[in-house]
Amino acid sequence: MSAPTDLSAAHGAIATPEVTTPAAPTDDHASAPERGAPRVDVPALESLLLGRWAPERRKARGAACDDRYVRVDGLTMDEHRERVFGQLGLLVEEGHVLRAFPTRLGGADMPGGNIAAFEELAAADLSLQIKSGVQWGLFGAAILHLGTPEQQDRLLPGAMSLAVPGAFAMTETGHGSDVASIATTATYDPETGEFDLHTPFRGAWKDYLGNAGKDGVAATVFAQLVTAGVNHGVHCFYVPIREVGDDGRAGAFLPGVGGEDDGLKGGLNGIDNGRLHFTHVRVPRENLLARYGTVAADGTYASSIESPGRRFFTMLGSLVQGRVSLDGASSVVSKMALAIAVRYGNERRQFAGAGLDEVVLLDYGRHQRRLIPRIAETYAMSFAHDRLLDLFDAVFSGEHDDAETREELETMAAALKSTSTWFTMDTLQEVREACGGAGFLAQNRVTQLRHDFDIYTTFEGDNNVLLQLVGKRLLTEYGKQFKGISAGGMARYVVDRAADLALHGTPLHRAVQTVVDGGSARRAAGHLRDEATQRELLTYRVEAAVAELAGALRSASKLSPQEAFDLFNAHQNELITVARAHGQLLKWEAFTQTLAGVEDEGTRQVLTWARDLFGLSLVERELGWYLVNGRLSAQRARTVTSYIDRLVGRLRPHAQDLVDAFGYGPEHLRAEVATGNEKARQDEARAYLADLVASGDAPVSEKSLQRSKRG
Amino acid sequence: MSAPTDLSAAHGAIATPEVTTPAAPTDDHASAPERGAPRVDVPALESLLLGRWAPERRKARGAACDDRYVRVDGLTMDEHRERVFGQLGLLVEEGHVLRAFPTRLGGADMPGGNIAAFEELAAADLSLQIKSGVQWGLFGAAILHLGTPEQQDRLLPGAMSLAVPGAFAMTETGHGSDVASIATTATYDPETGEFDLHTPFRGAWKDYLGNAGKDGVAATVFAQLVTAGVNHGVHCFYVPIREVGDDGRAGAFLPGVGGEDDGLKGGLNGIDNGRLHFTHVRVPRENLLARYGTVAADGTYASSIESPGRRFFTMLGSLVQGRVSLDGASSVVSKMALAIAVRYGNERRQFAGAGLDEVVLLDYGRHQRRLIPRIAETYAMSFAHDRLLDLFDAVFSGEHDDAETREELETMAAALKSTSTWFTMDTLQEVREACGGAGFLAQNRVTQLRHDFDIYTTFEGDNNVLLQLVGKRLLTEYGKQFKGISAGGMARYVVDRAADLALHGTPLHRAVQTVVDGGSARRAAGHLRDEATQRELLTYRVEAAVAELAGALRSASKLSPQEAFDLFNAHQNELITVARAHGQLLKWEAFTQTLAGVEDEGTRQVLTWARDLFGLSLVERELGWYLVNGRLSAQRARTVTSYIDRLVGRLRPHAQDLVDAFGYGPEHLRAEVATGNEKARQDEARAYLADLVASGDAPVSEKSLQRSKRG
Repeated sequence: MSAPTDLSAAHGAIATPEVTTPAAPTDDHASAPERGAPRVDVPALESLLLGRWAPERRKARGAACDDRYVRVDGLTMDEHRERVFGQLGLLVEEGHVLRAFPTRLGGADMPGGNIAAFEELAAADLSLQIKSGVQWGLFGAAILHLGTPEQQDRLLPGAMSLAVPGAFAMTETGHGSDVASIATTATYDPETGEFDLHTPFRGAWKDYLGNAGKDGVAATVFAQLVTAGVNHGVHCFYVPIREVGDDGRAGAFLPGVGGEDDGLKGGLNGIDNGRLHFTHVRVPRENLLARYGTVAADGTYASSIESPGRRFFTMLGSLVQGRVSLDGASSVVSKMALAIAVRYGNERRQFAGAGLDEVVLLDYGRHQRRLIPRIAETYAMSFAHDRLLDLFDAVFSGEHDDAETREELETMAAALKSTSTWFTMDTLQEVREACGGAGFLAQNRVTQLRHDFDIYTTFEGDNNVLLQLVGKRLLTEYGKQFKGISAGGMARYVVDRAADLALHGTPLHRAVQTVVDGGSARRAAGHLRDEATQRELLTYRVEAAVAELAGALRSASKLSPQEAFDLFNAHQNELITVARAHGQLLKWEAFTQTLAGVEDEGTRQVLTWARDLFGLSLVERELGWYLVNGRLSAQRARTVTSYIDRLVGRLRPHAQDLVDAFGYGPEHLRAEVATGNEKARQDEARAYLADLVASGDAPVSEKSLQRSKRG
Repeated sequence: MSAPTDLSAAHGAIATPEVTTPAAPTDDHASAPERGAPRVDVPALESLLLGRWAPERRKARGAACDDRYVRVDGLTMDEHRERVFGQLGLLVEEGHVLRAFPTRLGGADMPGGNIAAFEELAAADLSLQIKSGVQWGLFGAAILHLGTPEQQDRLLPGAMSLAVPGAFAMTETGHGSDVASIATTATYDPETGEFDLHTPFRGAWKDYLGNAGKDGVAATVFAQLVTAGVNHGVHCFYVPIREVGDDGRAGAFLPGVGGEDDGLKGGLNGIDNGRLHFTHVRVPRENLLARYGTVAADGTYASSIESPGRRFFTMLGSLVQGRVSLDGASSVVSKMALAIAVRYGNERRQFAGAGLDEVVLLDYGRHQRRLIPRIAETYAMSFAHDRLLDLFDAVFSGEHDDAETREELETMAAALKSTSTWFTMDTLQEVREACGGAGFLAQNRVTQLRHDFDIYTTFEGDNNVLLQLVGKRLLTEYGKQFKGISAGGMARYVVDRAADLALHGTPLHRAVQTVVDGGSARRAAGHLRDEATQRELLTYRVEAAVAELAGALRSASKLSPQEAFDLFNAHQNELITVARAHGQLLKWEAFTQTLAGVEDEGTRQVLTWARDLFGLSLVERELGWYLVNGRLSAQRARTVTSYIDRLVGRLRPHAQDLVDAFGYGPEHLRAEVATGNEKARQDEARAYLADLVASGDAPVSEKSLQRSKRG
């Protein structure tokens, strides 16, 4: 149902079909690099992108294009759920999902590699990814990280083998982001040695839980632990919820447990999200997952962490892997979407250009502006994720597990997960539109990815809430700056630290040094393409805004609670904005750091253009801020946009190589327009018209007839 | 699956539940206007929004919450299609859809009222809206606008009654935006007096056509008309495509016709989109819809429009109503989405504020920034649509039907449809996220609206292509400026003209006068809240960018075709950007014009804040441009953002009134979170906690215990 428009160029010709010009099928001039131009070493770049856990990623990609695992469109919700449940069993059998668990129980004690493989499951079906995330990354991980070794030995085997499908019952209908305020209680009864698990009102029902709608036979339930009249805050309990039928599948709810299905969702309909509630359900004392808090038989509470606040954040911080993996899944999904759009953009033709030959979409200036900066940002996102995964692995392998590093990991995960999931949603929409009506058909995959991915922006932490956490951390760091490290410099600090930990296993004096050098090395008139100029602009954005915010909020401690709340609230939007800029800076730093290690000259040149494009696009998006704050002159600001245009033009011939290096072939993309069919259709049309002209049977156009009459 | 975060304010308290403070259910202080503050007259504002065709809108809204018409989630594609097809019959029976057709055939010759009613069907089910749009707004409208009176009499009754479900076969797999280049041919054979309709290759298959997958028994097929060896360009033919079964439903394809189903789509799955192809299908000469071009029995072609280019655009321009109605549907969908999010934002609480009472979402600064500017923009969009519909009605009722007015209508429709559909998509996503996990459940409607609405950004003209058309028109107008009218001033010109036509039925000298006054009345130091300052800033944005573009493209006529194409292409992105700014200016002008007629003082005050917020938000989005171009000083630019913050704060107490005035109740919204259930859940929780405290049985928190030990 498209309607008439005229995209033909400045000369304003109306593109009525003229079949008088031979239109031989030729490759388009701009779709490949010219002679003498740098070339991307695609296999080497693919290898770089696969990163440290390449074998794990490759194995998971193999599953992700295996017919047994791939998403089938058009299933009913029930059919899709059954299919995905069956796939979970296959994942266990085929050794895809247990790497994070202890070797002594059949795992591999390999936290980073486990996440890397998990991320790649996005290419099969996001429902499969998230359902397996629920089982092993949430339910299983809660037992692993919050349980004692004895509890791991007792409870993990069932979770690992899928003998016990489980729900992760943290969120309630009434409390999502504010986990500390959940209202489910677990009250210890010393007479029976049991906890009494209870849901006091409708808002305290557990909600949105995968495996709760149908498949779960147990749950790790978060509740306020009350013993001897004292509420010790949120703890996690292992709770059987359903009978197991003769077929091994979940049956009726156990006594006292109730719930309902969340029903159809905007996506991820292969997962049985649902609600649970508890009416004085009794669980033995041994089912309190007791790593961070125990209750003795007499009801005495004990914890290795004295502060209830720190205890709470430590427990929940141990579950950071969800956010880490969603950041990685963002990279996978953005890569696939851009691979689809670029292939189509290089094959699809619309409107005649200077001659009568039709122009491929990616040769249009606007189309380039829509897609090429997103390719650059996807590289940044992917490289930053590698650093995050290094840091995650360092902490969870025990290599560098201390409170400070954990806090850094949590902050970086929050900054990257939020910016990456938003970017991916935005990219999916741009790609949908860049593929026109074809982009709307299920056979081209993009809308399905978008439906399923949507919830990634708010689960495992609402992006706005996560960024607020990051912003507060920046403010805290700012307070420490006179001790030698500035807030904006934290970006490099965190990235370098990750690299230090991962690549060198050494401490990080170098990072601090870099910050100091960076600070003193500001150049009066750097060029936009200089790494130092970009770093300076992006760092200054964060530093200056944090300093300004800190100044504005300084008086908070002297105000009444209401005034302090109002003051903070009035700056909440700015705080989130600067946190977002910080997340972007982390990505720019990671891209820059990775670039330094690229040896192939052509590849390094092209990636440098992409890094510059990413950095300057960030500056362009906040051009107003830079001008208002006197950091760019009007003249220099104009240059930002024109240099971006130039970079887009330089990268255009490499667009196909850059998305090919993502490593997702047609078997992963499963989009009709990314199979070569579009090129075949275009070639057939052009050949037909050429033959018609050659035959001499082509009708003349009324317009050319009029012209020749007048002429 | 949300995870832990701390949204509590500057004092940094960890919100572990403390039940020591009474938390009586009270209405939130900020959700209603304070004493002495202006108040919105909600019924009067609702009436203003209903506009000129209020009875038609009200009737359609009645259907839109009737169980027989509403969307049912979770149907299979086949079930949804059947349901929607049945609803089309009901629409005919109940007099909802035939107003645009001639009175002599049972219609009402009421083009504007017809579109107004059609738009409101969006509240029932977007599939129902678009399927009826296919039948009556495309298939029927093609017969109406491209056929002769004789053809109308012969072919319209079947289309109107749904006895003949029909497809609108314009787009081909290979040509969407570039309709002029479609490859289907209709070659006249004087020996038989028939056209031979033929599809020469795969790319020329008709594609994405509603009613083609299953229900259509005829189609209005666009093809290159060839007679006597001359191609006269695209014309439309009435072509039977399927047998009609004994049950009156479509059966097998007729000889020579083939096709296939487009299958599952990203949304609108109640519509049977599909493909058609023709192998030398013969149709009688009388089936050429002959209003703009005829072929005599001997094969002689004749047309009232000599230029083939102008003829093409005239024919396709007569189908502008699709774009007009999609602009209106954008308003309906944005209004519903914001009504859902604001209601939820006013009831949902999360995180304790200054005291221990939890804060409603819409009291958070960030949440306000996410939703309140969108309410303002929705008002602008809605008022601008009223002007567009006036203009549409003036042209198609015959009241002001001339070539110039038609061109204005087409330009305004392109500018509004593109900006409105993008805004609506963006709003749907923001609303989804603002409702958190609840926003993802089908029971809260938002994701379903988003899936279905997605394609609105590219059908009836890809938004980027439409904006390019607008940009070219601006450049053309710029060339005429020395004749008395400037390009940027066209915004007011078009709006005023619509108003003149609609409200006064008089010519439009006043409009030109306004432009001249506006130009001379530039003030050196206007305040941002002044209408004149906002107009000046927004108009200058368009005027200056058009002038700069015109300068950059001036040399095109002296260049080779390839160089001219490259030059234009290098500026394509800017051209589209300025066209978008023009579309926004049209909306701002329409808002301002409507404001002038609002009599209730409180309502006018609140709407003025909303208009100012919209205008300044537009400036803020392009702050970099204003600074680079010296139109705002850095100091003034800072003021833009702080004044926006102030306006958001002022509007916050009126947010509920502003969305209530949209006129969509829970029966239209059909979102669980917008029914009052959320407030009931919150009240229950607060009452429970208050009772617990009163009972003296509440456990003390470990934290407060530690505090009292220390104290």
